[in-house]
Amino acid sequence: MIQTPYLLFLGDAPDQLAAKVAQGIKDWRPENAVGQFRLPGCGADMGLTDMTLEEGLAAGAKTLVIGVANRGGVISDEWKVVLVKALQMGYDLAAGLHNLLRNEDELQAAAKVNGGTLHDVRVPTVAYPIANGQKRTGKRALAIGTDCSCGKMYTAMSMDAEMVKRGMKSDFRATGQTGILITGKGVPLDAVIADFMAGAVEYLTPDNDADHWDHIEGQGSLFHVSYSGVTMALIHGGQPDALILCHEPTRTHMRGLPHYKLPTLEQLRDTALPIAQVANPDCQVAGVSVNTKALDDAEAKVCLQKIEDRMGLPATDPFRFGATKLVDALLEI
Amino acid sequence: MIQTPYLLFLGDAPDQLAAKVAQGIKDWRPENAVGQFRLPGCGADMGLTDMTLEEGLAAGAKTLVIGVANRGGVISDEWKVVLVKALQMGYDLAAGLHNLLRNEDELQAAAKVNGGTLHDVRVPTVAYPIANGQKRTGKRALAIGTDCSCGKMYTAMSMDAEMVKRGMKSDFRATGQTGILITGKGVPLDAVIADFMAGAVEYLTPDNDADHWDHIEGQGSLFHVSYSGVTMALIHGGQPDALILCHEPTRTHMRGLPHYKLPTLEQLRDTALPIAQVANPDCQVAGVSVNTKALDDAEAKVCLQKIEDRMGLPATDPFRFGATKLVDALLEI
Repeated sequence: MIQTPYLLFLGDAPDQLAAKVAQGIKDWRPENAVGQFRLPGCGADMGLTDMTLEEGLAAGAKTLVIGVANRGGVISDEWKVVLVKALQMGYDLAAGLHNLLRNEDELQAAAKVNGGTLHDVRVPTVAYPIANGQKRTGKRALAIGTDCSCGKMYTAMSMDAEMVKRGMKSDFRATGQTGILITGKGVPLDAVIADFMAGAVEYLTPDNDADHWDHIEGQGSLFHVSYSGVTMALIHGGQPDALILCHEPTRTHMRGLPHYKLPTLEQLRDTALPIAQVANPDCQVAGVSVNTKALDDAEAKVCLQKIEDRMGLPATDPFRFGATKLVDALLEI
Repeated sequence: MIQTPYLLFLGDAPDQLAAKVAQGIKDWRPENAVGQFRLPGCGADMGLTDMTLEEGLAAGAKTLVIGVANRGGVISDEWKVVLVKALQMGYDLAAGLHNLLRNEDELQAAAKVNGGTLHDVRVPTVAYPIANGQKRTGKRALAIGTDCSCGKMYTAMSMDAEMVKRGMKSDFRATGQTGILITGKGVPLDAVIADFMAGAVEYLTPDNDADHWDHIEGQGSLFHVSYSGVTMALIHGGQPDALILCHEPTRTHMRGLPHYKLPTLEQLRDTALPIAQVANPDCQVAGVSVNTKALDDAEAKVCLQKIEDRMGLPATDPFRFGATKLVDALLEI
């Protein structure tokens, strides 16, 4: 569990795209960020107050979160000066970088001296159990995709936000590093040892109140041969009551696999539902979440209507048009 | 790669069952074992020549293989005396124990001094790539099960042995510690990091001659919620041309999951085939392998006939009646 609130470190991010983690925090947990810290030449701006480390601390920040990807896989000397100083001032550090904070001697040493914690959210810190498959109390929705990176995290975030707005009991359950940094906790599922994947998902989504919903962040796709095993473990470990099908309608092939075509939403439904019903015989496909970013408003609406007609399921782009339809569909289950 | 031939360490195994690894080597690679080493009170016997470490070395043994499970998860002092002596004499050690050889200071030190290697086959030693899904040359058969531990390894071993007997090009590809110790190489798939599972299977079964068959050892089951993600990665990483359905007909529930019923062979076929065809559109279900150990000869034959009639597929118990039917079925693909 990462201590909140955060000061967001944007470093020398060349542009907004490089600051995906900071953007996610800004979009979904703005109350977790007291401000942003930028180095000279930074091309990203979250629209938060620019702060020095001292100002961040005075505003209550507990953790300096690396909200940007680093260039070339190296934590630069320029970054390290700031990170070491932050540790000396009493901050914890959190990052989802490929190269770990803990592998930097200066950071390791400064953390030790000052009692700070280095959170490398790509690395599991828990000895997860092997899944036992026992039915848990409470409700769970899982976003599954025709492909990787088609909006599963934003879909689950949107449904959680809509439920919170309605005063319902709800949690977003992060399974990737961006989600973990946004919410401060979760399971970095793609880094878990094979035998413990489903058990990690059970651990992430424990028994809960009968009217509580977990919105589980999906990973990969049953149709993406590189990562389908991770998706499978999410379905069986999560034992969802509801599946939300996620789709990006303009994509021409599976992400990173130019020789693989995307499945149809029908194929995804027909493959995923029987698999999900192994762990939860009552599981249903509740709706479709379409990432319409590449379409204009009129195109998006036509696309959604067509999918609703074809599938007989509510379809929306929850980030663009809100998650009302999807949450309504969950409540009908 | 573990150096062969082996001397098989049976230690103080209470009975034959405890020596599953040694039994597998005896059954499938007898040419890899020059003899067996037993401590006083050993209740297991592979029918091999009993040898001292010196006699084993004289017979050409390169590696002392721990062919038994240790009691209580501890490598006993009695074992260690023998293992240290073996390292001093120039043996390598290999084991698939939960507690690792490398974590024992005396073994680590003796290996260092004598230049010996400690093979802990539960631990991956390769940085496997992420799967790229590209079509590979050569043919692959994958054994998949209605449940865990229903004979998948023996099925793949039997088909490989039958092909070798016929002078065909064939390899057994181990994905678990027993298979790795038997054949000296493979991938300990259940210990691989989630993101690299399918890539590890691609690595294990590379491009090969057009008429070469890989017989890939299956793991878990698509219907076993604890391990289904591993099975999924095997199907998509292995891109099999042929699936062999494996089944134990007397089992009353999924192994370790008393509240989960076994799927039927039809359910396994209907679930697995479309999934396999994502990675290899030409994949077919070629036959059924039935573990009839719990049945007498007459019962076994009736059971197999019933399954052949029901499924329209060749069915046999390859360990009991030979793998002729299954290999014939592969050749018809």
